Amino acid sequence: MTSASEPSRDDADIAMARLDALAACTDEPGRITRLAFSPALRDANARVLAWMREAGMAAGIDAAGNVVGRWEAETAGASAVMIGSHLDTVRDGGRYDGPLGVVAGIAVVERLRREGRRLPLAVEVIGFADEEGVRFGGSILGSAAVAGTLAPDWRERRDADGIDAATALRSFGVDPDGVGAASRRRDPPAAYLELHIEQGPALEDADVPLGCVTAIAGATRLLVTVDGTAGHAGTVPMRLRRDALAAAAECVLAVERLCAGAEAVGTVGHLRVAPDAVNVIPGRVRFSVDIRAAQDEVRTRLVDAALAEFQASARRRRVELAWQVTSRTETTPCSPRLVEALAGVLAGMGLPAPRLASGAGHDGIAVSAITEIGMLFLRCAGGISHHPAESVTVADVRLGIEALHRWSLALRRG
Amino acid sequence: MTSASEPSRDDADIAMARLDALAACTDEPGRITRLAFSPALRDANARVLAWMREAGMAAGIDAAGNVVGRWEAETAGASAVMIGSHLDTVRDGGRYDGPLGVVAGIAVVERLRREGRRLPLAVEVIGFADEEGVRFGGSILGSAAVAGTLAPDWRERRDADGIDAATALRSFGVDPDGVGAASRRRDPPAAYLELHIEQGPALEDADVPLGCVTAIAGATRLLVTVDGTAGHAGTVPMRLRRDALAAAAECVLAVERLCAGAEAVGTVGHLRVAPDAVNVIPGRVRFSVDIRAAQDEVRTRLVDAALAEFQASARRRRVELAWQVTSRTETTPCSPRLVEALAGVLAGMGLPAPRLASGAGHDGIAVSAITEIGMLFLRCAGGISHHPAESVTVADVRLGIEALHRWSLALRRG
Repeated sequence: MTSASEPSRDDADIAMARLDALAACTDEPGRITRLAFSPALRDANARVLAWMREAGMAAGIDAAGNVVGRWEAETAGASAVMIGSHLDTVRDGGRYDGPLGVVAGIAVVERLRREGRRLPLAVEVIGFADEEGVRFGGSILGSAAVAGTLAPDWRERRDADGIDAATALRSFGVDPDGVGAASRRRDPPAAYLELHIEQGPALEDADVPLGCVTAIAGATRLLVTVDGTAGHAGTVPMRLRRDALAAAAECVLAVERLCAGAEAVGTVGHLRVAPDAVNVIPGRVRFSVDIRAAQDEVRTRLVDAALAEFQASARRRRVELAWQVTSRTETTPCSPRLVEALAGVLAGMGLPAPRLASGAGHDGIAVSAITEIGMLFLRCAGGISHHPAESVTVADVRLGIEALHRWSLALRRG
Repeated sequence: MTSASEPSRDDADIAMARLDALAACTDEPGRITRLAFSPALRDANARVLAWMREAGMAAGIDAAGNVVGRWEAETAGASAVMIGSHLDTVRDGGRYDGPLGVVAGIAVVERLRREGRRLPLAVEVIGFADEEGVRFGGSILGSAAVAGTLAPDWRERRDADGIDAATALRSFGVDPDGVGAASRRRDPPAAYLELHIEQGPALEDADVPLGCVTAIAGATRLLVTVDGTAGHAGTVPMRLRRDALAAAAECVLAVERLCAGAEAVGTVGHLRVAPDAVNVIPGRVRFSVDIRAAQDEVRTRLVDAALAEFQASARRRRVELAWQVTSRTETTPCSPRLVEALAGVLAGMGLPAPRLASGAGHDGIAVSAITEIGMLFLRCAGGISHHPAESVTVADVRLGIEALHRWSLALRRG
């Protein structure tokens, strides 16, 4: 590996210490739980704001509760490269999913400051307030506000305690009537870059620290209901049964088999049996299906094929099948220009530059409405995320900061 | 059909009216829920006691809370044919599972009284207090007390509200320290006869009102745990997954396939997924297996075969498999002498006499410890039981009472 600006040990060490400090901002003592617009997120925003200011950025909380800092360009008021990720977490989550991309962005700016460099583009670092969607459902309220693509009903969405999003924002110190001002539609960044843990095992499996994300895979989610006939486990002969669980079991295996044979992943993660008693033949089963692929036509074909198999199984077993599409997200491609630039950066660092699709959703999906996006994945232990065992190495974080730094420097407007 | 003592319309009509009256004894208004030793069961016992006395029986509540009436033999103190079933129900159950056998027994005695007949054997009618095992687990506290086979820990078992069985009996008006006196080990009945709804669809499917039960099938229950690895539904490639639900789905289908190919039934009625989230690969699945067969060797072979398939699937999928046998009940054969007598009775009534095993458990399992048992099944609509939709016809009940009457008359001591 050769490098003109070899990172000091401190960059990565400081980043790791900051990630530990953010992990201490939690809504549930003993766990890392930082839900959107919660007191813990306010603490996290305050810490990030302080670090941004220490790094010489003009920083504040935007009209949607995101924390944003700006390292001015050579020419004041120039467009910016936006570097970011999110600061909220799932319940009992890990310390890297999200915050890593924010502290790495701050580290990039700290270097520019140390080096006394201004660039043709400003560098903005953003910590989004709501990416996981744990509190208010599937929304990505933070980056959607920045992209100006908030769902019309965002105010009415309620959390598990019945608190609506507008009230939650108000408690957070944000005026829900002013959220529109967070939109960057009229002043879009020149590009959006995000460093994020992979959340999967592909980089670890390939023994590579960093990867170039080519696209954020589209996803289709179904909720399927199988209605059979409940009955006594001892008295209904096998040939007269309409067992909803046996039918659902065939569906589970069909999803697995179809996706294993394609460039896709498919999961039945949720399944409930009714009445769920040892001595009663299942009368009804509800289950989810989640199918993702980097190519929309592959995903569409797999969803159709899965539904065809479900229907064939239901007909054969004389059970009723019903389903609804609960969500459908098209693939968000990363900008080929940004992917190429990142691949060049990694090659320059003497690293392999594997290209992979992101199976998880990210803020970039929303931000892609206003600018081109690029993502850099960082290897995580066992592919584990959304769990306290989430883990990265300081060596990989050092490489990640270096790559993000070089990638930012490589960009010129448009 | 020819008959020396064609039943009056009233026998069956009165029985149906009594079943309706018992259905009104409930712990949950609007449903039929009569748990063991509950206030609703006390009401039901009081009604049955009154009907027994109207029928000329010496009747009372025994030391375990069962209601028992006796129609004396030609010779006072002679052995008895015991006719009975249970008066407790599942939650939100039906009106025939259990009570039908008790009111039919009273109808048989009412006929003897109308005809002024005493028999060489007394006729006892019993309504057991706890067959369903809903309140205190798998126990059959009522008939086990009569058989003298109560589990040593029966007193400590607790219901969902934390009330132990001893306390429940006390509230019911029964001294828990005196339950032993309900045992009939030293004074066993000459035979135990029970009329019960089939709880399955075989008689309806064959268009036959009554059937001779040959045995109460043995049952083995397993609780199986599959441990895989939870992971992000979007990021873990199919080939790197250890999906606990996909493995469990194979097990569900193996149980179904193995039992469909044998004289047996097999059911996975309970299944729980963890963490049970749409976007998380299932890390752990727990499920029950219930396998029943009239022949113990068939059941044992099927349980072994199912476990072998589970293990093969677990090895192939690199998931961990653990299981425990949660209960194992051997087959309880009905007395061949009683089965033959019943078949003769049905033939005499001009009815088919199909022989079938009972897949459900019954009080006869306990009572078989002290005397020979026989069971008569009555067709029920759709094979449905343990549900408000449980249904029988008055015409079938009329035939059932007639058959039970003739069967009692046909018996001589041992």
